[in-house]
Amino acid sequence: MNTYSVKAYGTESKEADLKEMNIERREATPKDVEIEILFCGVCHSDLHTARNDWGGTKYPAVPGHEIVGRITKIGSEVSKFKVGDLAGVGCIVDSCGTCESCKQDLEQYCQTGFVGTYNGKDEHLGGHTFGGYSQKVVVDADHVLKIPENLDLAAVAPLLCAGITTWSPLRHWNVGPNSKVAVVGLGGLGHMAIKLAKGLGAEVTLFSRTPGKTEDAKQLGADHVVISTDDSQMKSVAGKFDVIIDTVPYDHDINPYISTLNINGTHVLVGYLGGLEDIINTVPMIMGRKSVAGSVIGGIAETQEMLDFCGEHNIVSEIEIIKMQEINEAYERMLKSDVRYRFVIDMQSL
Amino acid sequence: MNTYSVKAYGTESKEADLKEMNIERREATPKDVEIEILFCGVCHSDLHTARNDWGGTKYPAVPGHEIVGRITKIGSEVSKFKVGDLAGVGCIVDSCGTCESCKQDLEQYCQTGFVGTYNGKDEHLGGHTFGGYSQKVVVDADHVLKIPENLDLAAVAPLLCAGITTWSPLRHWNVGPNSKVAVVGLGGLGHMAIKLAKGLGAEVTLFSRTPGKTEDAKQLGADHVVISTDDSQMKSVAGKFDVIIDTVPYDHDINPYISTLNINGTHVLVGYLGGLEDIINTVPMIMGRKSVAGSVIGGIAETQEMLDFCGEHNIVSEIEIIKMQEINEAYERMLKSDVRYRFVIDMQSL
Ligand SMILES: [Zn+2]
Ligand SMILES: [Zn+2]
Ligand SMILES: [Zn+2]
Ligand SMILES: [Zn+2]
Repeated sequence: MNTYSVKAYGTESKEADLKEMNIERREATPKDVEIEILFCGVCHSDLHTARNDWGGTKYPAVPGHEIVGRITKIGSEVSKFKVGDLAGVGCIVDSCGTCESCKQDLEQYCQTGFVGTYNGKDEHLGGHTFGGYSQKVVVDADHVLKIPENLDLAAVAPLLCAGITTWSPLRHWNVGPNSKVAVVGLGGLGHMAIKLAKGLGAEVTLFSRTPGKTEDAKQLGADHVVISTDDSQMKSVAGKFDVIIDTVPYDHDINPYISTLNINGTHVLVGYLGGLEDIINTVPMIMGRKSVAGSVIGGIAETQEMLDFCGEHNIVSEIEIIKMQEINEAYERMLKSDVRYRFVIDMQSL
Repeated sequence: MNTYSVKAYGTESKEADLKEMNIERREATPKDVEIEILFCGVCHSDLHTARNDWGGTKYPAVPGHEIVGRITKIGSEVSKFKVGDLAGVGCIVDSCGTCESCKQDLEQYCQTGFVGTYNGKDEHLGGHTFGGYSQKVVVDADHVLKIPENLDLAAVAPLLCAGITTWSPLRHWNVGPNSKVAVVGLGGLGHMAIKLAKGLGAEVTLFSRTPGKTEDAKQLGADHVVISTDDSQMKSVAGKFDVIIDTVPYDHDINPYISTLNINGTHVLVGYLGGLEDIINTVPMIMGRKSVAGSVIGGIAETQEMLDFCGEHNIVSEIEIIKMQEINEAYERMLKSDVRYRFVIDMQSL
């Protein structure tokens, strides 16, 4: 298979900073599109993969799965796009297409495992996939999204991961105009959860540990802010919420949130992969038919639905644009939650 | 309010055996029916309440919430029943009727708390309610069920608690002919879960800790039995089930069962009120959109639906009939799981 070299930013080991390097991209096959990357959002998974926090990272690692750009080539069998179109790529660049999940447009739950945009198994070139911190990417057209023309392109990028990760559970658990939704944590995921739930017509509450985020949350669309460390405020929302989107990325006690669920309510974990050390009390779950669930990103069709919805409702992420060369400093700031609310790399800087 | 005395079986304290006593019943109001009790099932909650295992028991305590009998009087406003009809009473004898839950026929989740058949707050006479271990009971007609005439009456009694407790989650989580259902635990609840899931057309698997129950489970309708302590058997059902009905009445590790859920599957706790001491791993929940939920009994309309379904499908409980005077011995046998699968008291013995 023919390949060509593009500039990228990646790391050779878990201790090393990211730096400029060259990677190979395949020549577009008949089913592919080639995209010149204009902006790439910076997700916490990028950092965790670069530093091998979850194990399993293959090096060199080139992160980035919030990709927007313009199509520079299309394969002979591709009819959905034309050269010059805007295009987006999220966390999934391929899936089996034939399993029960894929048949239901749930590629994120592909039973043979979807191919991640980075650190996935590259079926074309062997080795592993390289992400969006690069000049170009070549992707199977069925896994590429159309981008609404009316939105700020840089601010669209985070929709491809942070947006769909919160959109999918909001839709799956039927959030609409009569819903009461709470969001736990105000970061990249949390701020999108507020905007999307509000866009869907829900009454939205942010749970925050400190009062400092109240003003910001309300500007993002939250109707209420509840300080989760204040018992009387927590009691005032007992039994209130239909859906809670919990974006907290570390272990935490979910029992206080379960108490704020309404009958039939669901607490959805989207941020923390690991063990819940606090003992979960089944009493409120049983006596109120409440659920604790998890959800990961979303399917391709659902991602397109979300992008179209954002186009209609003028919803984008709040971002801070950085140069590719500033990525290591950006990672350090992310670890301190010092970003409102997502870094996006201007790929022209590479 | 006029009352009259009936014979009952109850206990004066948590240490005392149950014994014969007299209790007062109200004269039927215009909205009530009076029922001569023919059979009463023996639920684990009866024992826990008699012995104050959960705290909050009021004495004297007269248990029993799996009641079937014949109507001996009806109030002037009651049109749903006539004297001589078969009738059933389950766990709920009253509810507010006006809250969001009651308006949706979810009296079991009444937001002001439903009135329990025993140990509930008696709004008519003051004090607390007395259950079905008695000659007669007087109940608001809207909380009384019609009993199919074609079923064995003694074996119908356990449907009023064990039946509806498993029926409600099967229906809420949409179990039907294409569903794969697993049941954890083969007791009063578990054996009904098997029969009802099978009746709904599902493929049914019993999880059992030991092979000793395989023959019984298959006779009850289970298609498969998986020994939960056998790793290779557990692996063979990884990702299989849409719904798991977990009837285990004590703390246990649910992580191995979560692994056997399919994408979008739900593990429903119906038997254990308390803390789950084992650390729950969120990874399979998030990567497979799996849920852990709870459910308690069912609403009045749903209980009627279940009884009608059992009438059509000839489904009843497996029972052992006892005399009222044998109740203390029956409790001891229940504690050793020495019953297949429900004791039912022949109230003629009182
Ligand atoms: Zn991401
Ligand atoms: Zn698949
Ligand atoms: Zn019961
Ligand atoms: Zn109510």
